Amino acid sequence: MDLTNLHWLSASDAARLIRDGVVGSAELVQACLARVRETDAQVQAWAFLDPDHALAQARAADELRLSGQPVGPLHGVPVGIKDIIDTADMPTENGSVLCAGRTPSRDASVVAMLRAAGAVIMGKTVTTEFAVRAPGKTRNPHNPAHTPGGSSSGSAAAVATGMVPVALGSQTGGSTIRPASFCGVYGLKPTHGLVPRHGMFRLSRTLDHVGLFARSIEDLALLMELVVGYDERDPDSRPRARVPYRDVAAEEPPLPPMFAFVRTARWDGVDADAKEAFAELTGHLGERVETLELSDAAEEASEWHRVIMEAEMAANLSREWETGRARLSESLCARLERGRDVRALDYLRALTRIPELHASFAELFAQRYDAIVTPTAAGTAPEGLGSTGDPAFCTLWTLCGMPALSVPLMRGANGLPLGVQLVGPRHGDARLLRTARWLVTHVASM
Amino acid sequence: MDLTNLHWLSASDAARLIRDGVVGSAELVQACLARVRETDAQVQAWAFLDPDHALAQARAADELRLSGQPVGPLHGVPVGIKDIIDTADMPTENGSVLCAGRTPSRDASVVAMLRAAGAVIMGKTVTTEFAVRAPGKTRNPHNPAHTPGGSSSGSAAAVATGMVPVALGSQTGGSTIRPASFCGVYGLKPTHGLVPRHGMFRLSRTLDHVGLFARSIEDLALLMELVVGYDERDPDSRPRARVPYRDVAAEEPPLPPMFAFVRTARWDGVDADAKEAFAELTGHLGERVETLELSDAAEEASEWHRVIMEAEMAANLSREWETGRARLSESLCARLERGRDVRALDYLRALTRIPELHASFAELFAQRYDAIVTPTAAGTAPEGLGSTGDPAFCTLWTLCGMPALSVPLMRGANGLPLGVQLVGPRHGDARLLRTARWLVTHVASM
Repeated sequence: MDLTNLHWLSASDAARLIRDGVVGSAELVQACLARVRETDAQVQAWAFLDPDHALAQARAADELRLSGQPVGPLHGVPVGIKDIIDTADMPTENGSVLCAGRTPSRDASVVAMLRAAGAVIMGKTVTTEFAVRAPGKTRNPHNPAHTPGGSSSGSAAAVATGMVPVALGSQTGGSTIRPASFCGVYGLKPTHGLVPRHGMFRLSRTLDHVGLFARSIEDLALLMELVVGYDERDPDSRPRARVPYRDVAAEEPPLPPMFAFVRTARWDGVDADAKEAFAELTGHLGERVETLELSDAAEEASEWHRVIMEAEMAANLSREWETGRARLSESLCARLERGRDVRALDYLRALTRIPELHASFAELFAQRYDAIVTPTAAGTAPEGLGSTGDPAFCTLWTLCGMPALSVPLMRGANGLPLGVQLVGPRHGDARLLRTARWLVTHVASM
Repeated sequence: MDLTNLHWLSASDAARLIRDGVVGSAELVQACLARVRETDAQVQAWAFLDPDHALAQARAADELRLSGQPVGPLHGVPVGIKDIIDTADMPTENGSVLCAGRTPSRDASVVAMLRAAGAVIMGKTVTTEFAVRAPGKTRNPHNPAHTPGGSSSGSAAAVATGMVPVALGSQTGGSTIRPASFCGVYGLKPTHGLVPRHGMFRLSRTLDHVGLFARSIEDLALLMELVVGYDERDPDSRPRARVPYRDVAAEEPPLPPMFAFVRTARWDGVDADAKEAFAELTGHLGERVETLELSDAAEEASEWHRVIMEAEMAANLSREWETGRARLSESLCARLERGRDVRALDYLRALTRIPELHASFAELFAQRYDAIVTPTAAGTAPEGLGSTGDPAFCTLWTLCGMPALSVPLMRGANGLPLGVQLVGPRHGDARLLRTARWLVTHVASM
């Protein structure tokens, strides 16, 4: 075992090696901590990281295994948690000075689920202010002059640099897909309601999703098996039969998948190198891909998304706005002010569009396509740290609550990574992972 | 069998006699139609009633039974349906000239459920305009100079006069409890989401409930067994285990129930004779009742109810407002205009109160009380047909989605009926019926 590269182990491999006694959790966590020391001065992925506490969890995991007790599917594996997701043993500051020193007394549902699976909670990763736009300190691991994307900046960057094999983030606009694309890792926004959000900062009930970051599809499938579940404290969670995500993701599709290439009305604004990369990809796919024009309704979705998000965030941040406005960023204040003026009539109208839109996509998937292929962003990570980029290519899929996946398949002319976004039908998460695996294998064989 | 009084049979008795071949459905429906001819010129309970069509359904029911095929629990029994609930074989006009001649192509879920149980859909009962305030033509069956209450005016009046044994209505404010109280019948607003609303005019997703009218608790329990069920087309419907409502309602409570008498902040406005009637009732109950003061939060609920109802009705009636405003009542226009101005912020804040309120009541029920006893209205049906009365005593329970029942236990100084409202915890519908039966028996033995 080459201990100098332990930090590049996938979560699935690490869990297997730990279970088999080949690697200790403490060894793995120490390797990841060494990687943090090596890279984080530049990347700045962490809002909170106490090496001793991480190591203490790892040692306890090793002791438990040595005692002969059964271990969970993520036993001893370190995970990064976006700093809007509550942890009982670490601060959760939501990327805002208004929450400085906030120490929740309970774990969020997803954190409790990961701990139950044996995970070591490595630390809290940097988020933009309240998971909206104002950037945190994180830099793109491939070029520190570029944004890592946001709002789940730290989670994407930490996974990309090998500081943790997997991490949790969130997505309300494009907060998982965009940083995954910019940092060159896999990012999955599962179907709305599938992963419970209890204990995660609530920006928008209608749009908030827990997001997952990993360096392999197998790891995303493993995470899905752990964090999908019913929680009555999330009003959009429903009891559902268990899905064997790993088995489905690993299967060969019975037929080669069929893709719909959706350029969207924003295609003119896509960078030339990104356009070329898509031309190459669709060229590879040949008759397995068709270009699909969206309906006008779908093209208007970003406006409905804006109305819903701004109205709900104004309600959810009303206490902060009323008592701490001076300590919010200007950009957040401006959005909250707009949100406070939204009429209930417009908000409710926007909500009624969701099932309509969703039905039209459901039909497309049922009749012809396994997945939509579409840009994650207008191009690679923009230069500068003043903005985390534009979520415009993600909002439609977030609004519809459909599963979306960024696959690190492309590179820009500047050498920075660029993800391809795959979108599937609601509750088609496992098959979307299977389709993505087919695509990655297919492209690799070109 | 005294055929002259068939129309006073309960639905449960009628179903039994029809199943056993003692009475024919056609005989029963003819008796009810005779009762309509006798009383409806004055009461005016029906928006649509085609005697031939009702009789044709009854004859088909008789033929089916004679053919030896199994029959449902409401086989051959006539039911009145509020004219905001779609029927595929009769018009559904929502109490508005804007919907004159509207003929839906499908039955609402609840109508389909009743037909599957063998019911004869007698006709459509009068509603106020879009189930809001502007009265229909129905008069109080006990005194035609008085309102029957609303918005389910026709359903309450038709059951009270023996034109049908049972009927469906709805409640968004107090539209089941109030007319049941004013007409002297039982009215049940079940737990929110329990009875699917697909195919019923949507005024407010958050507040709309299907309501049930009957002349006995046994009949309400029978109806509940038929109309409670999961329907994915109602966004608030959830799959749930079947409850044997009739068995539970018929059981003797293991301990005599404990009541909380809630006078509410509106007690000062309650009529003197109603206050006396409550004093007598609580006197009878002795140590089985305690007076309970509501929290300030509960007293503010009518304002939250107003914000939610007006915002949602403005969205749901926006097409009517935009294209047919001149043909809406002035009072409805005024409410829609207010609703169109509600801010999403205030609407969303009001929504967050519901689970908070509900939690505080859930605790009260879990710790000490079987049911809340509270007024249905400030007194008996007011004189005049220009208003259907004030729903203020119902809105809190509607907002919380808790089951509420009007029990025809009292009479005013003017001889008109007055119901007592019993309220139970969410999903405690069957036990609430059991508690009501105990109360009725207990009071009768005084």
